[in-house]
Amino acid sequence: MPNTNAFDRLRVVLVNTRNPLNIGAAARAMSNFGFARLRVVNPFELAFREARSAVGAAPLLARAEEFKSVAEAVADCLLVVGTTALSRRNPEQDVRGLEQSARLIRKRLAAGNVALLFGSEKRGLSNEDLSHCHWLMRIPTREEHRSMNLGQAVAVCLYELAREAKPAAGKEKVSRAAAGDLERLTSLLLELLQASGYLKTASDKAGSRKSAAPADEKLRRFVRRLNLSADDAQLLLGMLRQMEWKLRTSAKLDYQ
Amino acid sequence: MPNTNAFDRLRVVLVNTRNPLNIGAAARAMSNFGFARLRVVNPFELAFREARSAVGAAPLLARAEEFKSVAEAVADCLLVVGTTALSRRNPEQDVRGLEQSARLIRKRLAAGNVALLFGSEKRGLSNEDLSHCHWLMRIPTREEHRSMNLGQAVAVCLYELAREAKPAAGKEKVSRAAAGDLERLTSLLLELLQASGYLKTASDKAGSRKSAAPADEKLRRFVRRLNLSADDAQLLLGMLRQMEWKLRTSAKLDYQ
Repeated sequence: MPNTNAFDRLRVVLVNTRNPLNIGAAARAMSNFGFARLRVVNPFELAFREARSAVGAAPLLARAEEFKSVAEAVADCLLVVGTTALSRRNPEQDVRGLEQSARLIRKRLAAGNVALLFGSEKRGLSNEDLSHCHWLMRIPTREEHRSMNLGQAVAVCLYELAREAKPAAGKEKVSRAAAGDLERLTSLLLELLQASGYLKTASDKAGSRKSAAPADEKLRRFVRRLNLSADDAQLLLGMLRQMEWKLRTSAKLDYQ
Repeated sequence: MPNTNAFDRLRVVLVNTRNPLNIGAAARAMSNFGFARLRVVNPFELAFREARSAVGAAPLLARAEEFKSVAEAVADCLLVVGTTALSRRNPEQDVRGLEQSARLIRKRLAAGNVALLFGSEKRGLSNEDLSHCHWLMRIPTREEHRSMNLGQAVAVCLYELAREAKPAAGKEKVSRAAAGDLERLTSLLLELLQASGYLKTASDKAGSRKSAAPADEKLRRFVRRLNLSADDAQLLLGMLRQMEWKLRTSAKLDYQ
């Protein structure tokens, strides 16, 4: 198994999983292919740790970390990749094939943590979940029958990730921004756009709840598409903070 | 999906399967990856055709053929390949990796039928079963945890078999921002940063020419590093224009 240390930086994140057997099956596949870090976000059955499907992977399952939100589950990751059965769910988010995705993920794992998200059995990842992702990865299933069993999807993805005999050459020189910083950027930008009248504020749109979430999600996706390095994220945070401060103080005087 | 007719010549043969859910899961993976011919040899539960795990693959499961022996199940095949978790079970039989095996099987499928055998959950294929095989194929699981779930093993093998001969040429679908737009972005950002006090303005820094040019250049490089698409560049321009307008009008009132 190549590059085992790097594999330890992958977080397999199962979001809103309904059937605990699928969590156990995911744990087993992780153990088969050399991945150890399982995270679950709001599992439907809290007793998932006893899933008998985790044959040979009970310790891995016992060590799974639980989170209340996707944002928290991916906060320490440099790259967040969502899995999807559709090829064109979000035209504004890149969808890459499994093979290409695996290459990119292996490269990124040489530098830091990567989260791989799997949605619930019925609905997959929600638009809100997807907005936390830098890009999406698709397993090349048939057009006519795209939807895979969750445990099988995890197995196929991890097989592809583990398949290269050689660890990814060309370790990335630039360290990428962690998801936590990207989320801070997103919030700050949202505030600024509301303060400047580009977006309506929560109070303005009391009657029009429809447009509330999408603005958040669009901004979140936009910020992920920028593919910021850790340094550039700090730089941009500094710029936006200053603008926000200036706008706030000017506006205060304005209305005095 | 390449070469669909050839895929129709693959027989997935499940031998002595105990859990009907695994037969259903195998059927689902077959349907996902474009294989239609399932054969079962002495399944433990005769009611396997009702397995609810065959989501989306019920017709395939209904058409599964039943046999009393491996010999009968593989009789019409030019090549019989057994799957195994062990690397040296039968020293007298070749064991090949999944990737190489898939290449050989695809080649053979161009000429005729090929059988791919999966043994029971507990014991895998017996020595008698293995004796029907031309060679064995192994999924590259970890030394310490070789044994896979049956449905997951089928999924991984069929994924590898269905892998496109050529990797998808990752042609970019998104058109990138033109340099002119990036330059407009840079100028606007520079103005904003000066207006908000993040950077000094030209008049402020009369005595300190040293730091003047670098700020421009740093911003320009920063904007290029964002690697914006044409659409995202327009989006960002719109956001910054609004902030700039708001700052300008607020500041004017401020000093009135």
